[in-house]
Amino acid sequence: MSTPDPTACLLVIGNEVLSGRTQDANIKFLATKLGELGLPLREVRVIPDVAATIVGTVNEVRARFAQVFTTGGIGPTHDDITSECIAEAFGVPWEPHPEAWARMQRQYKPGEFNAARQRMATMPRGATLIDNPISIAPGFSIGNVHVMAGVPRIMQAMFENLAPRLPGGRPVRACAVHTHGVPEGVLAEGLAAIQARYPSLDLGSYPFYRASGGGVAIVARGTDEAACAEAIGAVTQLLRDLGGAPVAGEPPV
Amino acid sequence: MSTPDPTACLLVIGNEVLSGRTQDANIKFLATKLGELGLPLREVRVIPDVAATIVGTVNEVRARFAQVFTTGGIGPTHDDITSECIAEAFGVPWEPHPEAWARMQRQYKPGEFNAARQRMATMPRGATLIDNPISIAPGFSIGNVHVMAGVPRIMQAMFENLAPRLPGGRPVRACAVHTHGVPEGVLAEGLAAIQARYPSLDLGSYPFYRASGGGVAIVARGTDEAACAEAIGAVTQLLRDLGGAPVAGEPPV
Repeated sequence: MSTPDPTACLLVIGNEVLSGRTQDANIKFLATKLGELGLPLREVRVIPDVAATIVGTVNEVRARFAQVFTTGGIGPTHDDITSECIAEAFGVPWEPHPEAWARMQRQYKPGEFNAARQRMATMPRGATLIDNPISIAPGFSIGNVHVMAGVPRIMQAMFENLAPRLPGGRPVRACAVHTHGVPEGVLAEGLAAIQARYPSLDLGSYPFYRASGGGVAIVARGTDEAACAEAIGAVTQLLRDLGGAPVAGEPPV
Repeated sequence: MSTPDPTACLLVIGNEVLSGRTQDANIKFLATKLGELGLPLREVRVIPDVAATIVGTVNEVRARFAQVFTTGGIGPTHDDITSECIAEAFGVPWEPHPEAWARMQRQYKPGEFNAARQRMATMPRGATLIDNPISIAPGFSIGNVHVMAGVPRIMQAMFENLAPRLPGGRPVRACAVHTHGVPEGVLAEGLAAIQARYPSLDLGSYPFYRASGGGVAIVARGTDEAACAEAIGAVTQLLRDLGGAPVAGEPPV
């Protein structure tokens, strides 16, 4: 029996997503990248800037998933408490990280590396830095938890630096077909039969709506690229049999 | 002592968000609407179409939050398993709902209300329908759990029908100010002092980036509208003292 593929969990930390102020832009990016690395995302939690919630959630999910990623809450203001909560979750001191401290001190004029900014160079003991080429203040990894900024372009730059050291698995592949004119309720039975023949794949059915009319896209996803293509071949035939005019790939946006 | 305000949790159910195929568009809508109803969203979980995960998560969060909302997984295909999982979570039979059945039967030609579509009219015993003016197939409420479609325009229409019967609390209000030229690391200390004076509010600091230059927005959020305005007044003075040119409200997009 082969080892199960590793899985990932993402914690989006911040009141701004829960209040509706901010549209999350990190889930889709990380979901896609983690799939490519063979670390498929299996759960996301959006949680507030509340210490007990962050500590409890981190400890729950780091035990359940191979890798945990967090975004948000590592800036200099009072509501940025992710870093100290991670230290508490791991039961280690939260202390100045010499290399992070040195990098941040270099970018400020004398006297401007104040207490608020020093918090951004304070980390759980044992943290490994995640470089930040945009705004210097690093993220960090400790154990299987990887702590990144919430601002999308900074998070993305951090993730590119983190990715090479992540122990991934087999990349997740996807294959798709779409059509107009075949309602989901009509294709459901045949689709279920194809899913049953490919138990290692996730076969998803997604209605779409365009000014030109609606339709449905079927996506096969899994680590076996040949099986994905085969399953989508079978779906294509099914859609044709049901009177559709299937087209390879996802529908144009 | 006043009763604590009720809180909400959202479960986004579907492999398509976890795989990165689909950008979630429901969190922001529901977060905003729930705040207005005085049911602030305190946690979101994005979980896969896996029965044990759905059942376990529903039972965990319906005990912890006043109201639970789900989106996704109530269509006619094999991966639409939310409804039967909710029945399992509540320990009740999953059976044809007479009114849902009648509504759906009416919209199909004889012979087209097939087994797949009949699943969409099958619900946990005791469910109360949530009307769907777009595509007929209803959502439903059972206990404090409200089950809606994943397609945003259908979910939004369902929510408008559900909202009047939700037992809400005091609406969450927000007040904001923004400025260029005052880095977060400079305003952090003064902002923390203002937050300490208004413990009932969430005072959030959000950097923004525009072609015209970066800045920071400060948002005060809470059920006491006068306190929000007062706190933002104090922040406005702070930003002026630090050399900024604060402007009321959020920065233009």
